[in-house]
Amino acid sequence: MLKLYYAPNSCALASLLALAHSGARYEAHKVDFAKQEQRSPQFLAINPKGRVPALISPLGLLTETPAILVYIAQSFPAARLAPLDDAWQFAQMQSFNSYLCSTVHVAHAHRYRGYRWSDDEAAIESMKRKVPETMKACFEQIEHDLVKGPFVLGENYSICDMYLFTITNWLEGDEVDVNWFPKVAAIRQWMLNNPAVQKVLKSQ
Amino acid sequence: MLKLYYAPNSCALASLLALAHSGARYEAHKVDFAKQEQRSPQFLAINPKGRVPALISPLGLLTETPAILVYIAQSFPAARLAPLDDAWQFAQMQSFNSYLCSTVHVAHAHRYRGYRWSDDEAAIESMKRKVPETMKACFEQIEHDLVKGPFVLGENYSICDMYLFTITNWLEGDEVDVNWFPKVAAIRQWMLNNPAVQKVLKSQ
Repeated sequence: MLKLYYAPNSCALASLLALAHSGARYEAHKVDFAKQEQRSPQFLAINPKGRVPALISPLGLLTETPAILVYIAQSFPAARLAPLDDAWQFAQMQSFNSYLCSTVHVAHAHRYRGYRWSDDEAAIESMKRKVPETMKACFEQIEHDLVKGPFVLGENYSICDMYLFTITNWLEGDEVDVNWFPKVAAIRQWMLNNPAVQKVLKSQ
Repeated sequence: MLKLYYAPNSCALASLLALAHSGARYEAHKVDFAKQEQRSPQFLAINPKGRVPALISPLGLLTETPAILVYIAQSFPAARLAPLDDAWQFAQMQSFNSYLCSTVHVAHAHRYRGYRWSDDEAAIESMKRKVPETMKACFEQIEHDLVKGPFVLGENYSICDMYLFTITNWLEGDEVDVNWFPKVAAIRQWMLNNPAVQKVLKSQ
């Protein structure tokens, strides 16, 4: 049985969605960020990074969203969550997820976690002010250059859509209107209408 | 024939190393960051992200280091650059590369590219000051929790070592001594003694 440690509204939602679509048997364990539970000795013994998502399989710990998403897709191939049989399409999927984790999530993180990169209060405030601009620029790139349509990778719904949906949920807080990006907004709406997605969102 | 656009001392070195070890026929094209060539209309027509590495295959453009490294490993399986036949080991490889791109490279980028996340000069200076601390913390995590030894994934040299080596090269400029991390330092030294690595470093 797989076990996923997550926090509500974090990037762990992508992994929850992939698990929900995979057909896997799994348990989801909430980590309470308000109580700083992710920094507790108990949680650090599970995941020394002190972050979510953290997937526990019978083989051990797996961290980092792009790795977890692909592992779920490969472990449950019948669910067809990723282009597993075509190395080029697989690479494009990886490229999209990598852009989300290393550029888009990072841009967003400067709103709430500026302390990671500066000890100066004024600097942290200045980072917050720029987030609407950087997130808008990221989503312009996603809309114009990266999403093939109707889904991220084209005709097939995949882990890329689940990861994009997760980050798209942060846009309102970042003062960016998802409707500026019609392809992204359409994927989001399709997913909001999907019963499996609805079930995950309710259970968070 | 594969073509890789790179800039010296950038993270594109990891992809150059993977190509050199793969047995692939490839061309390496230097992009001159001093002349802002990565923002030129010519280069943006090749890679709309305006970044390196950018791999051109007969099928098109592939960006993002973790995606490029895995694509090279999958395309040239005889070179055994990644654990392709074991989904769990493959996932651990992906997790390591994802940590490098989304946390370690990002920590380093606050030294030279703080303007991405703030428009305020004092804030950008304050980000620079914290880089030695954040990079040291990242490499403590890598040394203690992530590198199995002797190589990143254990007994076999892989694309993870190539990516780690690339970022390790930035430590001196970030005021961090690689010798504080014996496993990382040993991988670096092994690679500095490797003829294929030496050839790539000379050609950059």
